[in-house]
Amino acid sequence: MTHNNPGSHTDRKPRVGQVKEITSLSNPIIKDIRALALKKNRDRTSSFMAEGLKLIIDALDQDWHIRTLIYSKAAKSNAAVEQVAARTVAHGGLVLEVSDKVLSAITRRDNPQMVCGVFEQRYAGLEDLHPTRDETYVALDRVRDPGNLGTIIRTADAAGASGVILVGDSTDPFSLETTRATMGSIFAVPVTRTDIGGFLKWCNGQDALLVGTHLAGAVDYRTIDYGARPTIVLMGNEQAGLPTALAERCDRLALIPQSGRADSLNLAVATGIMLFEARRHLLEVPR
Amino acid sequence: MTHNNPGSHTDRKPRVGQVKEITSLSNPIIKDIRALALKKNRDRTSSFMAEGLKLIIDALDQDWHIRTLIYSKAAKSNAAVEQVAARTVAHGGLVLEVSDKVLSAITRRDNPQMVCGVFEQRYAGLEDLHPTRDETYVALDRVRDPGNLGTIIRTADAAGASGVILVGDSTDPFSLETTRATMGSIFAVPVTRTDIGGFLKWCNGQDALLVGTHLAGAVDYRTIDYGARPTIVLMGNEQAGLPTALAERCDRLALIPQSGRADSLNLAVATGIMLFEARRHLLEVPR
Repeated sequence: MTHNNPGSHTDRKPRVGQVKEITSLSNPIIKDIRALALKKNRDRTSSFMAEGLKLIIDALDQDWHIRTLIYSKAAKSNAAVEQVAARTVAHGGLVLEVSDKVLSAITRRDNPQMVCGVFEQRYAGLEDLHPTRDETYVALDRVRDPGNLGTIIRTADAAGASGVILVGDSTDPFSLETTRATMGSIFAVPVTRTDIGGFLKWCNGQDALLVGTHLAGAVDYRTIDYGARPTIVLMGNEQAGLPTALAERCDRLALIPQSGRADSLNLAVATGIMLFEARRHLLEVPR
Repeated sequence: MTHNNPGSHTDRKPRVGQVKEITSLSNPIIKDIRALALKKNRDRTSSFMAEGLKLIIDALDQDWHIRTLIYSKAAKSNAAVEQVAARTVAHGGLVLEVSDKVLSAITRRDNPQMVCGVFEQRYAGLEDLHPTRDETYVALDRVRDPGNLGTIIRTADAAGASGVILVGDSTDPFSLETTRATMGSIFAVPVTRTDIGGFLKWCNGQDALLVGTHLAGAVDYRTIDYGARPTIVLMGNEQAGLPTALAERCDRLALIPQSGRADSLNLAVATGIMLFEARRHLLEVPR
């Protein structure tokens, strides 16, 4: 793919006519972009929005397909923005130079990033995931909170996990709130989705250790041998524990001991603690 | 104090005239409560709002002073609500029965809890904190995000930490977003605040291990001996590392190894991982 070849077109400026200037909120292109705030519109167009120049460069470097690049007039002469605009055009995308008012409206922020982009959604295929030893996956049972999901994707990235599997009816990984919370990890961590039946069928085809977090019949999360096989860490959602069908399939049910009076840890924090335990033998401070 | 004596007044119903019925958003009492959304008004009145019946019962059980109890008409005949109303009156507080419209406006939610309360703010005094062995404190350098702070207070509670110390200009622990994220732990975990100078002076008066999270000159967070002395886990904020004055005072600088391309873990997740490591030798699954 051409964008694996740096310099092939990064020095090619968008030609006149390839950049649209827009200052009106009633412009139909802007209306379509703003409509991406709703899940039904993201689903229909299979696209989503991401903010920030660095993040967009990362996304392009990782072969994500950009449909529209939007930048503030103030960013016009920025060399990095010009490069990203050229890459967008080279991939057949649209480049929009907009007023700050339009940018605020698109991002729903008072102080928006200078650059944002509309990308094609991309889910990994569950059938393509074949965990190997030293690999760890996170499976989330019906995760509800966009911020939690985003933070978990970010945490999976930091911990070196190989992917996130959404099981059942989950919050949308491509919502603005979720992608924001991923801090760019949405472009780095494969995300896939399935239902309970599909997940169980997939599990049965893998030689992996399925560790669920659970209250009943559970063992201390630190006593489990995570090193012998690839591990899938399965987290129940914010409201309820794991449904029986999932809990019964788990090779081990793990409990994080807690001493306070709080009902439970926040889901993203609990996932972080589980992931850094499951990968404890694999994570090292570089020397 | 009377509320340490359960039953002394929990069976006493509020008398007629002690419960105000309010259906108008322009009622001055409601206006004052809504004004608590702004920090300056919380500071001026030294009060804050908390939502949820269970949470309010917990707060009263833990001697927090309630100024105003607000409940939905629909909760009127609920026995637990009547008890809380009686306790509020017995403590000299005001009880308001309001319409759902008013409750939504107060809580800024479409589907609000049926009960909320205005409480007096309470900070622990730093000079009253004297960490003993097996105690762990969390110190946060200029934490910015309300959700992060709330999640950290909740995590500190779950990990059995003894308190949270806010250093420098921090987000308000009594904002609605923060108290929501604490899931009630705001009433269980002592929170104190100070500046860098005050924090360093306090540290010098304690025989505690100060462990800062830092990138430079840091050691693997799992190689530190957290068991010999009380530990203070000091976390840098969301944007920057620890300022030099704080980093230099740390007995150990700790690093959580990360393998992904993400810049860093979310602050609340990193704090959770640090806390569960610092208290690893103290946390056990109950048998």
